[in-house]
Amino acid sequence: MGVMSTVSSGQHTRPMCYLLLLMILQLGLHTAEGVWPLPQTLISSTERFHLSPQAFYFGYGRQSAAQQGCSVLDAAFKRYFALIFPDYTSGRWNLFSDKNESKILLQIFSVDHNDCDGYPNESSSERCKMIADYLLQLVYQDDFGSYFVNKTDIKDFPRFQFRGILLDTSRHYLPVQAILKTLDAMAYSKFNVFHWHIVDDPSFPYQSRTFPDLSSKGAFHPMTHIYTQSDVRRVISHARMRGIRVLPEFDSPGHTKSWGKGQPDLLTPCYKGGIPSGTFGPINPALPSTYHFMATLFKEVSVVFPDSYIHLGGDEVDFSCWKSNPYVRAFMQKMGFGSDFTKLEAFYMENIVNITSALNKTSIVWQDVFDYHERIPKDTVLHIWKGTPASYYAELSRMTKAGMRVVLAAPWYINHISYGQDWHNYYTVQPLNFSGTEEQKKLVIGGEVCMWGEYVDATNLTPRLWPRASAAAERLWSDEKQTSNVDMAFPRLQDFRCKLVRRGIQAEPLYVGHCKQEYQGI
Amino acid sequence: MGVMSTVSSGQHTRPMCYLLLLMILQLGLHTAEGVWPLPQTLISSTERFHLSPQAFYFGYGRQSAAQQGCSVLDAAFKRYFALIFPDYTSGRWNLFSDKNESKILLQIFSVDHNDCDGYPNESSSERCKMIADYLLQLVYQDDFGSYFVNKTDIKDFPRFQFRGILLDTSRHYLPVQAILKTLDAMAYSKFNVFHWHIVDDPSFPYQSRTFPDLSSKGAFHPMTHIYTQSDVRRVISHARMRGIRVLPEFDSPGHTKSWGKGQPDLLTPCYKGGIPSGTFGPINPALPSTYHFMATLFKEVSVVFPDSYIHLGGDEVDFSCWKSNPYVRAFMQKMGFGSDFTKLEAFYMENIVNITSALNKTSIVWQDVFDYHERIPKDTVLHIWKGTPASYYAELSRMTKAGMRVVLAAPWYINHISYGQDWHNYYTVQPLNFSGTEEQKKLVIGGEVCMWGEYVDATNLTPRLWPRASAAAERLWSDEKQTSNVDMAFPRLQDFRCKLVRRGIQAEPLYVGHCKQEYQGI
Repeated sequence: MGVMSTVSSGQHTRPMCYLLLLMILQLGLHTAEGVWPLPQTLISSTERFHLSPQAFYFGYGRQSAAQQGCSVLDAAFKRYFALIFPDYTSGRWNLFSDKNESKILLQIFSVDHNDCDGYPNESSSERCKMIADYLLQLVYQDDFGSYFVNKTDIKDFPRFQFRGILLDTSRHYLPVQAILKTLDAMAYSKFNVFHWHIVDDPSFPYQSRTFPDLSSKGAFHPMTHIYTQSDVRRVISHARMRGIRVLPEFDSPGHTKSWGKGQPDLLTPCYKGGIPSGTFGPINPALPSTYHFMATLFKEVSVVFPDSYIHLGGDEVDFSCWKSNPYVRAFMQKMGFGSDFTKLEAFYMENIVNITSALNKTSIVWQDVFDYHERIPKDTVLHIWKGTPASYYAELSRMTKAGMRVVLAAPWYINHISYGQDWHNYYTVQPLNFSGTEEQKKLVIGGEVCMWGEYVDATNLTPRLWPRASAAAERLWSDEKQTSNVDMAFPRLQDFRCKLVRRGIQAEPLYVGHCKQEYQGI
Repeated sequence: MGVMSTVSSGQHTRPMCYLLLLMILQLGLHTAEGVWPLPQTLISSTERFHLSPQAFYFGYGRQSAAQQGCSVLDAAFKRYFALIFPDYTSGRWNLFSDKNESKILLQIFSVDHNDCDGYPNESSSERCKMIADYLLQLVYQDDFGSYFVNKTDIKDFPRFQFRGILLDTSRHYLPVQAILKTLDAMAYSKFNVFHWHIVDDPSFPYQSRTFPDLSSKGAFHPMTHIYTQSDVRRVISHARMRGIRVLPEFDSPGHTKSWGKGQPDLLTPCYKGGIPSGTFGPINPALPSTYHFMATLFKEVSVVFPDSYIHLGGDEVDFSCWKSNPYVRAFMQKMGFGSDFTKLEAFYMENIVNITSALNKTSIVWQDVFDYHERIPKDTVLHIWKGTPASYYAELSRMTKAGMRVVLAAPWYINHISYGQDWHNYYTVQPLNFSGTEEQKKLVIGGEVCMWGEYVDATNLTPRLWPRASAAAERLWSDEKQTSNVDMAFPRLQDFRCKLVRRGIQAEPLYVGHCKQEYQGI
């Protein structure tokens, strides 16, 4: 029996490959079970097909702009084949369980042009990834080990184009393996932006080509707790193969204590009783050398990280050290800022944004920068991290009214933990429930799950992140009306979590129960 | 240079081996760093000795009752040697880093008698374990890989004899490997009781020889989610080698939903509108068959689990089903209990305690049993799990006034999580801070950390348990006055946590920072 999945072309993107209507096959009884996040439409029938690992293959359609040799797709086919047929690839496959001669041919059409050698970006279509994704989630095994899939129509596209996860590699160092594992799990939940909060106060693990002292003096250890250029390339490449962008953050002028160890005169010396106290504050905005250094650093960063965005931070700047420093105060006078230090911060951030603009990068900054002033270029993306729904809704209104694009992170600070099923909190967020026009709502380009590192390193990252982050993933991908009920979502998420465990992701349980295959990684 | 540690005999125990005064050697600058829990006295000098893995050995003293061939000690020596010299045993040892001809001979004196072939019990001395334990914690490497230890005098004994950890294998199944790993980590923190809450409402994973249907029908899966007799033996043997008792809990009459699947007529049929509703309540206390079944089951359990304690549960019995059942009500009348269902529960528990008494086992029960009636045998141990400090102090007073021995678990419900350094809560408990005489306080035999399984399985057990449980471990082992300050304890616990990570225990971080060797198990 030959089955061909039909694929038609898409409508509103410049895609790497269109896959708007995808006929796949799925278990009728298990409709949508374990499919996470929920597609925009999924219609499954009870008509089921036997899949034979021996006869199954992914193929390129004749009209496809991408053909064999397209690294991203070739690698994805191989990866997904192993995930779809785990017994077969692990050698546990029993030939006797597969006497059926059915054959599935899955064709991928790539219209317009191929992006096989590029990096995922803002306008990447995510449709081609979906075909393998859904097959992965829909194939099931019966009790005899045979693989089946039910006839299923899926029509899908993401609700938001920016679906990110932040990892913080400064408060604790995360070995590269932990980052790669997170990228694997991100792809399973259709996250497409890895926001790498790579440096901060406690440590500077990024090994800069231009300023090697930043890590040799600012990392927890200059050899074992750093990311070399090759480590960074490995992360970016692993992400690219999974349709994930890597958005680096070099947060300043606050959160820079570790920078000061390897770069003299960068931080502001704090004063006490008229003399330097020996402690240091934020980056010194009053020295020309600061901007020279930042321009050089960002020039390197803009080459090392191919994504069109660079995150500039700009959050939580403590003014007390600036206030204490007579040279900074003199600079304030000279610039006509009076005693308004928000103007000094704004001045600093404008200079940094100008540096990245000159490098043809889009800046993304934490909300503080918008709160302090509105002279920020219109193409800057704002990142909301503070407060309760009431306060982030107000911020969303204000920012989008000013015509700015916004990423919402505030409701998804997933490092905060509490007892019980707190995934409900991440699931029931309504990102567009603020007062504003339709045009304003379109400016909300997505959301981000933040895993700050105060209490997290490689020992507990994965179970703390998954499947809790998956709740946010569905909110950012799926139709809100179809996914408004946590009780309906619960068994599907529980099933999805078992699939993560089966794929080697140490995802924690949601509640009492079990998986067919429990985690054995101990 | 030859160094001999001198060991004198103990005073107030019937020990497997006495080690009251142990001269070990420790880094002066690092006094007590990473030594956890804190010994009763530890005096270290700056005099340090070079340890050569090639020349180091554990030996039995001539007067020792235990000699080579003592399985527990021989195995411990081997295990600890590998932990003390990780580079050497992993083959990463560099001969050039060890040109010193120093020699350490460590003698173990075992006075009175040896317990080489027995199981740890209530009255076991824990002194012989300590010698290797401290050596493990005190040896350090310099930057060239050489091992050193500083001259150190340690005098030590545990404050409480019962220092337990509860794992719940019913709400989620824990693979045997996860239990063994927990036993390893328990030994590192000097826990000595593994309270195995093996069955409960959601599943019955214990494969009974006498009643195989209990697991074949009551486990999550009859083959993959069970503990066979051989699994249980493996757990008990692994625990024994580490000086840990295995205390099994078969909780009844509540928390028994899963029992009903494999044992007809055991649970109480609930009634609604005068007819059976199809649902079931606690074990039926009105049928003679119940007591016959329980006697047979506990006869098996008392053989399979060699410990002198059996935990009988007795908590959280919901009376509504008993109330609904006309046969139970008729039994109440016959027995003269009126409508006081606490009397029915007391009647049930007395029968169960009598069963275990006849098997020469000490019963331990949750506090509910004491709260309902006081006709409980005086040698029963009571287990406090409820409430705030005010309420558990009141309970401690009442119970010890009644002459009962008590284990305190209420302040150490470690499954409850919250954001931040919640180990402070487990550390600052003052178990004896209740009103009562010195005699009463002696009846508090120890405490227990409970990891209930609603949200915990093998994916997140270890990072959720460690090092948070270690905070409780120090409270139960060490002198309270010497360990009352969390800020003083913090760096030592942080260092100890890094040691756990180095030994392959996925212990989560306490706060911002790093370990020399980060967790690489991903």
